[in-house]
Amino acid sequence: MDLLKRAENALEFHFGRAVGSGAPPRLVEAMRHAVFSGGARVRPQLVLSVAMACGEDAVELTDAAACAVELMHCASLVHDDMPTFDNADIRRGRPTVHKAFGEPLALLAGDALIVMAYQVLLNAGQAYPDRLVALMQNLSAGVGLPSGIVAGQAWECEVKADLGQYQRAKTGALFVAATCAGALSCASDASPWAALGANLGEAYQVADDIRDVMGQVILMGKPVGQDALHARPSAASELGLDGAMAHFQSLIEQAVDCIPQCSHRGLLQQLVHREAERLVPSAAFAEYRSQQSATPQSISA
Amino acid sequence: MDLLKRAENALEFHFGRAVGSGAPPRLVEAMRHAVFSGGARVRPQLVLSVAMACGEDAVELTDAAACAVELMHCASLVHDDMPTFDNADIRRGRPTVHKAFGEPLALLAGDALIVMAYQVLLNAGQAYPDRLVALMQNLSAGVGLPSGIVAGQAWECEVKADLGQYQRAKTGALFVAATCAGALSCASDASPWAALGANLGEAYQVADDIRDVMGQVILMGKPVGQDALHARPSAASELGLDGAMAHFQSLIEQAVDCIPQCSHRGLLQQLVHREAERLVPSAAFAEYRSQQSATPQSISA
Repeated sequence: MDLLKRAENALEFHFGRAVGSGAPPRLVEAMRHAVFSGGARVRPQLVLSVAMACGEDAVELTDAAACAVELMHCASLVHDDMPTFDNADIRRGRPTVHKAFGEPLALLAGDALIVMAYQVLLNAGQAYPDRLVALMQNLSAGVGLPSGIVAGQAWECEVKADLGQYQRAKTGALFVAATCAGALSCASDASPWAALGANLGEAYQVADDIRDVMGQVILMGKPVGQDALHARPSAASELGLDGAMAHFQSLIEQAVDCIPQCSHRGLLQQLVHREAERLVPSAAFAEYRSQQSATPQSISA
Repeated sequence: MDLLKRAENALEFHFGRAVGSGAPPRLVEAMRHAVFSGGARVRPQLVLSVAMACGEDAVELTDAAACAVELMHCASLVHDDMPTFDNADIRRGRPTVHKAFGEPLALLAGDALIVMAYQVLLNAGQAYPDRLVALMQNLSAGVGLPSGIVAGQAWECEVKADLGQYQRAKTGALFVAATCAGALSCASDASPWAALGANLGEAYQVADDIRDVMGQVILMGKPVGQDALHARPSAASELGLDGAMAHFQSLIEQAVDCIPQCSHRGLLQQLVHREAERLVPSAAFAEYRSQQSATPQSISA
């Protein structure tokens, strides 16, 4: 089974089990809208592939760890899309949760998804209490204080924020949690896998900044030009578009290089390169740059 | 040390440890505002007193369990106060978190407090992995799907909601989690303690409905008349004020009666009666009713 398919199946199974019976139906519907919306499932695939590289031996726990990371990611998207932050009407080409279900249910769906991430781990991890505790610590670090994705988002509300610290927390922290979760779910040492997550996370954030500027030529499935609109720290505004692209490529190479020696190293390296091309297609970037040089206006990123 | 003092000290210690270093300072400030605001600490005191009744043997874990429940409670208050729900400007006589720090930080502070509740348990529970897992399952059930406080709040967004189911989830679930956490933190059977939490939780919700109507004569420290304003299901609107008061008193007696045989049974029963009087002071209720009978207008609860 390919990794995307495995991640989707695991999400269906673990989501359904955690919902239980008797929950408010519209809340569940809002949560499903947030989770089952054609996302690329990058983080759970990362959990699964690192686990395979570590000699996976507890399939259900690894699946649960992959789901938990994705549920946290979905929760953060629901809250970030709300009017008080991005005020985004669409996400992945569909109405955002607050647009489809109203703000109260969007707020609650995000809260319930955070709790569900822990529930999914708890439901699957009974047979492995030590791994379970390590996975929950790892997940909490990726999301909470001091430097998880919630803290990362909060740096946007500070008067002074360091771009690197902001990006490492806002995006990198959950990628680090993903690679480490893959290792922890098979009782492997997580530390050699943290750098892969950190480099990939930073690369994703830079890619997102680049795509936000290039939005005209790539189908984003969400509003573009948001960084400039919200005056958010952005690699594209700090380094210029070419500088940001060079930084992105260097982060991808660092990610590829830092993958520890393991049985699937070559496969993992291919996965990273494929993801890089999916994130910022080289042809689309080249086309955008040639359009830019053909017109006299400057890049107002 | 009295229970309130112990709960406050535990919150200071466990909050500080979970914050770690390098977190966005305004986010931390917003979270502190939410947590350290003169709350009655009813739920953590309940955790502590049940643990003592069960022969407490792991003080730090019990403290952490008490803190985790209170952090979840504070998170729910922060989100419930936001404009999309109650739009409350004051809470416990002070500006609500979104009034003091803005909506983005209020949203994030609630999210971070949910995660922090788990972090506090994880930080304290390393030596007791089995208790830790049971405590986290118990906490998740009190907050998440299908019938924790987030689900309870979500019943307000459904077209049709059963008042009992709504109240059991919205308030009762975290009281049940509190009494059960006390038992679980000392590896005792939690099931005999669930009924105490359920009765107390329902009593608190009914008391809140009564206080919302009587707001004029009791200092609420928060806006009153909110249930009627938001057309929320309410015991006072369903049973009338006198009916709600009779229901409240019967719930308190049930709570007192269902306390399991234990070394501190009498003390726990006193605690419940004291809380009941604090929640709806009999003198204030009598005064309000006499004012109501003296004026011709009907009770528009």
